[in-house]
Amino acid sequence: MTTTFKDASAQEIAQVMEKSWQAFLAYKKFSLKQRADFMRAIATELENIRARVIPVAMEETHLPEGRMNGELSRTIFQLNDYGKAAEEGSWLEARINTAGQDPSKPDLRKMLVPLGPVVVFGASNFPFAYSTAGGDTACAFAAGCPVVVKAHPAHAGTSEIVAEAIVKAAKDTGMPEGIFAHVHGASFETGKALVMHPLTKAVGFTGSLAGGRSLFDMAGQRKEPIPVFAEMGSVNPVFLFPEKLKQDGEAVAKTYAASITQGVGQFCTNPGLIFGVEGEDLQRFLGVLAGELQKVAPANMLHPGIAKAFWQKRAKALEQKDVHTEVAAAGEAEALQGVPTLASATATAFLNNPVLHQEVFGPYSLVIKCKDANEMLQAVLHTEGQLTSTLMATDDDMQKHPELVDAVQNLCGRLVMNGVPTGVEVCLAMQHGGPYPATTDSRFTSVGSDGIKRFARPMCFQNFSNHLLPEELQNANPLGIWRTVNDALTQSAL
Amino acid sequence: MTTTFKDASAQEIAQVMEKSWQAFLAYKKFSLKQRADFMRAIATELENIRARVIPVAMEETHLPEGRMNGELSRTIFQLNDYGKAAEEGSWLEARINTAGQDPSKPDLRKMLVPLGPVVVFGASNFPFAYSTAGGDTACAFAAGCPVVVKAHPAHAGTSEIVAEAIVKAAKDTGMPEGIFAHVHGASFETGKALVMHPLTKAVGFTGSLAGGRSLFDMAGQRKEPIPVFAEMGSVNPVFLFPEKLKQDGEAVAKTYAASITQGVGQFCTNPGLIFGVEGEDLQRFLGVLAGELQKVAPANMLHPGIAKAFWQKRAKALEQKDVHTEVAAAGEAEALQGVPTLASATATAFLNNPVLHQEVFGPYSLVIKCKDANEMLQAVLHTEGQLTSTLMATDDDMQKHPELVDAVQNLCGRLVMNGVPTGVEVCLAMQHGGPYPATTDSRFTSVGSDGIKRFARPMCFQNFSNHLLPEELQNANPLGIWRTVNDALTQSAL
Repeated sequence: MTTTFKDASAQEIAQVMEKSWQAFLAYKKFSLKQRADFMRAIATELENIRARVIPVAMEETHLPEGRMNGELSRTIFQLNDYGKAAEEGSWLEARINTAGQDPSKPDLRKMLVPLGPVVVFGASNFPFAYSTAGGDTACAFAAGCPVVVKAHPAHAGTSEIVAEAIVKAAKDTGMPEGIFAHVHGASFETGKALVMHPLTKAVGFTGSLAGGRSLFDMAGQRKEPIPVFAEMGSVNPVFLFPEKLKQDGEAVAKTYAASITQGVGQFCTNPGLIFGVEGEDLQRFLGVLAGELQKVAPANMLHPGIAKAFWQKRAKALEQKDVHTEVAAAGEAEALQGVPTLASATATAFLNNPVLHQEVFGPYSLVIKCKDANEMLQAVLHTEGQLTSTLMATDDDMQKHPELVDAVQNLCGRLVMNGVPTGVEVCLAMQHGGPYPATTDSRFTSVGSDGIKRFARPMCFQNFSNHLLPEELQNANPLGIWRTVNDALTQSAL
Repeated sequence: MTTTFKDASAQEIAQVMEKSWQAFLAYKKFSLKQRADFMRAIATELENIRARVIPVAMEETHLPEGRMNGELSRTIFQLNDYGKAAEEGSWLEARINTAGQDPSKPDLRKMLVPLGPVVVFGASNFPFAYSTAGGDTACAFAAGCPVVVKAHPAHAGTSEIVAEAIVKAAKDTGMPEGIFAHVHGASFETGKALVMHPLTKAVGFTGSLAGGRSLFDMAGQRKEPIPVFAEMGSVNPVFLFPEKLKQDGEAVAKTYAASITQGVGQFCTNPGLIFGVEGEDLQRFLGVLAGELQKVAPANMLHPGIAKAFWQKRAKALEQKDVHTEVAAAGEAEALQGVPTLASATATAFLNNPVLHQEVFGPYSLVIKCKDANEMLQAVLHTEGQLTSTLMATDDDMQKHPELVDAVQNLCGRLVMNGVPTGVEVCLAMQHGGPYPATTDSRFTSVGSDGIKRFARPMCFQNFSNHLLPEELQNANPLGIWRTVNDALTQSAL
């Protein structure tokens, strides 16, 4: 059973955005605690619908029950965590410079205020955590913005049930009508109408480079351009340093076989490129990795579109000149399945062929054999921006190759040391973002409560009477938040 | 004597950007203290060249000595202040989440790192404070980025002397070659080549809407889009509330006459629109304002281009249907002079004619007569984004019109209460930015040390050995900076 939904018309979208704007005018005045209570209520509702929504999500995404349950729990955690952060208030960046004894100086007080209605495009590979009630939605609510979600057509039924839960939580906590809207639309036109509507003030997107760039370009062509944070995936290069490879090659290979195939490789942090210096150690690594990957059975991908793209991009990659297929199939595979695949090529081939830089979304990785560390450096300098990069290196390796380490760091938003890029912890110190084409703005993150700042802007109040200021900026600091008062961080009253 | 300079060729620009990139690789590893020392050295050099540069700046800009001296002092203050902020380190947003007892959790540590070479386009109206060694340059150096300045052709000689001072300071403090470059170019092509060069990673601009939007559009069309913070001016609407107007109308009118004509009206915070409810009080206000403006003598504008634009836009505004000229000339004016000008129109005319919303850069203001507070609200809802808005209101006025106050706040980055928008204090709590078309990204500021964040991005280190981490993130907190450790702000070691 697949539920189908009608695309929203331009007129419906205009009505949704008008309502969203009215909700913004009300919601922006709600207290931080009210925002957090609303988010906690959504979290509770998601727990309430668990038994009902998991089977629907499993059917729509072909993801197993354990993963779906875990992802729903992560989504609940995000709502609670970002709600708590919203309430704690550090993210507001409250700054106060008092006039002091100088009558010519103004009293200036600044804090972040919400941008306005945010349009969220969810990810196909995370039907809960980066979709309807996912990270972008949670960040927008925390910032004080209403949200309009365009349901991902690949899990429209799941999205519908989650949307109902949000609407119920909104009613239960007295939120304004229009605080959340859920729009269906499999067509390009629906997304375009949402991004181009003058009352849309920001966009959150998780998906492909083509999709994200097209929304970014549209937003830039508006009369009033708006920020688009598009997280568009990554090949997450891994760099095997010589000493580490000699010491731990086999263990690293086993770890990576698991990382490459986790969730049928359908993660934006999947390691798609592995660089090493050619020689005995790299050959041994390749052998073990190939052996491990051969043991992994093919598995259903999220939906036919994803599977089709995997097979096409995989075929294109494997047919490139100087690309050697190391592992191609583990038993019989069906068209909807992802098959663990490993290929290798020289750094020269990599440097000369942009196709080898492209993401093959699925359980696929390409090992690049470099002549030496210098050629590895050249390869790094010709690699595009990434969500993550990983250094597999001993301390000695790191100290011997400072220029290489530095170049790898320039590539990415998160630099992993002796681990795997898959697994994105939800916490304040996480950075899930990176230089283009990983995202459209490397200055922001879509995971962790710093993601709230995507949807807020500083607002300065000059010479306001104390009682007319927002609570956050009043002398007494009634909320007890951290503020920078005359250049010193403090929780004290003035 | 006017100095003329040759436009940089595409080849020269490519060389400059290559050097800038090499400087970036070195400078990004310099300590916060080294960055601050460099900035303090520039400040010292600017003091050293004061006697030499002020006459050149006066000749190029027609601005008086007092203003030029004050602006140079402000520029020196900015360099010292942002340098101090860079060193203090709060802006780095250092966050640490330790793994704790859970072996499945990673150790994550995040801080802001520089974006790369920043191209700065200075403002014609601030030859020091928003030009060569101005706010954008200071923010970029503080962030750890090299700077390439495109000299403003209207004060190329001033720019050249300031550039020499920066180069000397860079040498004296052991900065890498290429940390700063100064490029001349009166043509559109020079600016375009700088913005489009692949090694340019961000752009700072202060100037016109047409100029800023065109750089923003170019940057968005790059293969790798880059952030452009363009501050593009504003009409800075002022809202006269009924009770305030009745109580203080005359005093307000006198204050505003000074604000409108300060610096021949050549400020991006110049009050270009004044809204009031028609009636006796507004008429009296208009009368006093007109009388005061008539007393102000015309004065030379910055350069012929600015004066020409003033006369053209002024003429266009005054010839619009239903626009009444209240003050048109004070004595004989020359073509290079700005003449204090006041006009009035009804809110109906304002609502129906976009020309009346446009900035007339110079000593010009338009009073909009509204039938009542509701029509004033309609006018606000149809006003574009602004750097500032001003409420001239008693506490009673504020309490009687919450919807109007809220709508005015939505417009702007800084909301002034019972004051004038001109005068932009350099401090952390300042917000000099605002919704489009005031700037291209309302989430950032170009005044105050928060402006540093325009040129930096978060970088997360996962599972790094303590000694391989940047000092800012090491357990011992050797720099003693504020960090958020396991969700709590602290200056302590781990």
